[in-house]
Amino acid sequence: MEFISGVKEKEDLSIAQLLEEERIGKCVKVCGAVHSIRKSGIVQFLILRKADGLVQGVYEEGKTKFSLKGVKEGASVIASGILEKNEKAPHGVELRLSGLKILSSPKSEALPLPINKWKLKTSLEAKLNYRSISLRNLRERAKFKLQEGITRAFRDFLYSQGFTEIHTPKIGAKGAEGGANVFKLEYFHKPAVLEQSPQFYKQMMVGVFDRVFETAPVFRAEKHNTKRHLNEYTSLDFEMGYIDGFEDIMAMETGFLQYAIKLLGSEYTKELDILKITLPKADNIPAVKFADIKEAVAKEYNHTMRNPFDLEPEEETLIGRYAKEKWDSDFVFVTHYPSKKRPVYAMDDPEDTRFTLSFDLLYKGMEITTGGQRIHEYDKLIEKIEARGMSTDGMEYYLDAFKYGMPPHGGLGIGLERLTMKLCDEDNVRETTLFPRDMGRLEP
Amino acid sequence: MEFISGVKEKEDLSIAQLLEEERIGKCVKVCGAVHSIRKSGIVQFLILRKADGLVQGVYEEGKTKFSLKGVKEGASVIASGILEKNEKAPHGVELRLSGLKILSSPKSEALPLPINKWKLKTSLEAKLNYRSISLRNLRERAKFKLQEGITRAFRDFLYSQGFTEIHTPKIGAKGAEGGANVFKLEYFHKPAVLEQSPQFYKQMMVGVFDRVFETAPVFRAEKHNTKRHLNEYTSLDFEMGYIDGFEDIMAMETGFLQYAIKLLGSEYTKELDILKITLPKADNIPAVKFADIKEAVAKEYNHTMRNPFDLEPEEETLIGRYAKEKWDSDFVFVTHYPSKKRPVYAMDDPEDTRFTLSFDLLYKGMEITTGGQRIHEYDKLIEKIEARGMSTDGMEYYLDAFKYGMPPHGGLGIGLERLTMKLCDEDNVRETTLFPRDMGRLEP
Repeated sequence: MEFISGVKEKEDLSIAQLLEEERIGKCVKVCGAVHSIRKSGIVQFLILRKADGLVQGVYEEGKTKFSLKGVKEGASVIASGILEKNEKAPHGVELRLSGLKILSSPKSEALPLPINKWKLKTSLEAKLNYRSISLRNLRERAKFKLQEGITRAFRDFLYSQGFTEIHTPKIGAKGAEGGANVFKLEYFHKPAVLEQSPQFYKQMMVGVFDRVFETAPVFRAEKHNTKRHLNEYTSLDFEMGYIDGFEDIMAMETGFLQYAIKLLGSEYTKELDILKITLPKADNIPAVKFADIKEAVAKEYNHTMRNPFDLEPEEETLIGRYAKEKWDSDFVFVTHYPSKKRPVYAMDDPEDTRFTLSFDLLYKGMEITTGGQRIHEYDKLIEKIEARGMSTDGMEYYLDAFKYGMPPHGGLGIGLERLTMKLCDEDNVRETTLFPRDMGRLEP
Repeated sequence: MEFISGVKEKEDLSIAQLLEEERIGKCVKVCGAVHSIRKSGIVQFLILRKADGLVQGVYEEGKTKFSLKGVKEGASVIASGILEKNEKAPHGVELRLSGLKILSSPKSEALPLPINKWKLKTSLEAKLNYRSISLRNLRERAKFKLQEGITRAFRDFLYSQGFTEIHTPKIGAKGAEGGANVFKLEYFHKPAVLEQSPQFYKQMMVGVFDRVFETAPVFRAEKHNTKRHLNEYTSLDFEMGYIDGFEDIMAMETGFLQYAIKLLGSEYTKELDILKITLPKADNIPAVKFADIKEAVAKEYNHTMRNPFDLEPEEETLIGRYAKEKWDSDFVFVTHYPSKKRPVYAMDDPEDTRFTLSFDLLYKGMEITTGGQRIHEYDKLIEKIEARGMSTDGMEYYLDAFKYGMPPHGGLGIGLERLTMKLCDEDNVRETTLFPRDMGRLEP
């Protein structure tokens, strides 16, 4: 028997370690996947792919004391050699190879996609079918590293604001939002659904922790087949009590965006550079009323407004353009959505009950967040449920929280993949979804 | 229109803020829920519950210039008054009340559970039925704050070790582990399942990011009705490439546990005190072979071993006891599980192929982790799949990753609720699950 006492230092160096000045001129070991092998006269370049970037190994025919024969792209290796500076190499250093140990060699002779090209110019369909391969391309991979940064910023910022992280169930007896857009399953001979959002649960937990958040999958059986819809996505949700109004929710989201921009700008510069992304500003995000901005863009862009109580994707695009032109902002809060477009728990505006104390956040003309203040009084909630001709069936547990007291509260849900998509200037949300689920895709 | 520029400071003070020396003697405002109202002569104590603890408000009949009549337990209020020191009050301070604003009052006259008692002595069934209420009890709530700390430690430690966070789909065409224990659903007229684990996805992503982790729900349709099983739980998963052996996985888990213990000990002392928890040690975790430890406990405790290739719950308990008695450790790694008890992707021990290069981690005699090294070569994987008489149907995408090259790798999955349960010395995993899902429970 033995004792395990924690993580031990490895010989394998990360790129950050290779860039430490004292390594230059020393013999180092680097693990990685063979990203490409390139011949240039009597020299061959063996490019290794590591989690944090590429490392160039230099092989000189006749001089280097091992053979590169049979080394395949996709092989996992340990390369060793003297580390030298070379401005032209990735990160400014290269390895003068003295040894190569093959850890694992691929079965196949050639890769199905040219992942070692700078831009992976292949169809989205092929990229998704070969997901485990296409993401080995540096640009494809970088998008998901930025996605990590966004999620991390969300959590870290909310921790700093006194929020508690929760884990709510995804299988339930009934969907929180009601409606037909739920996936149904059989749960030990009982009918069950996959939750469309953690809405009811996070609200119940406001009565316990005051402020809560969750970053988890949500499921929507919507029959949309568009560039912006997924049937399963990651929702960044929070809900907070003791608010003065729904402006507090917008303020908290703005704080998160500011924090995220800062975190990405400090710890994810490599990925921002790879993708040539300029971070947006979120110092001052304009907030405009639904009815007002609809009218403003109709006038400004000569757009015919079809329905005063609905916002079409084209209108979202125009609002995004308007926000950019008028206020130089990639973000814009659209507030006071029509009551009939919002779920029953949304708090109506006491000044005009056709509208709600709610908002969407648009980023470059696309909705990435829905949020608002919720009804916190039992009687008012029952009243609105009845006014809509709905039943309280399956809502008993939710209503309990209100029966026994709830503070004024509100919250929001952010679509992680959409936010990443807009940050990366992609035009299809599948480009920034690791393994998308849509009407036609269940695999991989 | 207006501009939203981020989070503004609120008048409402947190308990941490109330404890700042310069607040004493000043008039302060505190938001909270009325946790209890207690009469003691002409004085009444109004105890407010906040996210970070209790605040005592003092009301003196005749002196205080408002009425407490009609103030219900469960109401949300803003209390104002002069802050004074009082050793006997929670956190050593109290508010001499001068004003009380009711933000929201509960519908019901009395709470269904005595949540303001120190220990909530009620049945588990009642606690779960009234989840949104029972968690308002300080001890019940504290367990989930510790659960947050564990999850946070997992992520933060792995970030520091170069891991990338991923989000893998929960709806799939086929379960990763195969077998009958999957929930089935219809996905746009196609058969689909809920993923039992992110196993295949995280392995595929090792070929992309070298090291990945995910903290997400998993679904098991197992017909177990025990104190340790759930049909949906939160799995802390990681997978790492370029390992020298499965010992690297155990070392990484040990590092995580050490980090978690440190984080809980520094930032979650309040909850540890409330629950009177002494943190375990994880400096040196014993690792013993499955076959050896089975024999050792059979001999030590006069236990009759029924099956040399299986570990019964009673044996796990005995192994836990053995580890405590022999090595003073709450944790023990049991290594080299029998091959027939492990999934097809587990790497067999080349020295004795009846066993695998894998492990379970037991905490106080209960399995909280399963992990090990995986097969990374395509041919060997196919060979084992065929030897088991299995089909590669639905595994095509998974196998692609191996066809095009994968490094030696391994990983693990930790049951978050079980780890929390053992930390809190609870005897039923439902006690440390926010909204448990079991064979009989789909609500709330």
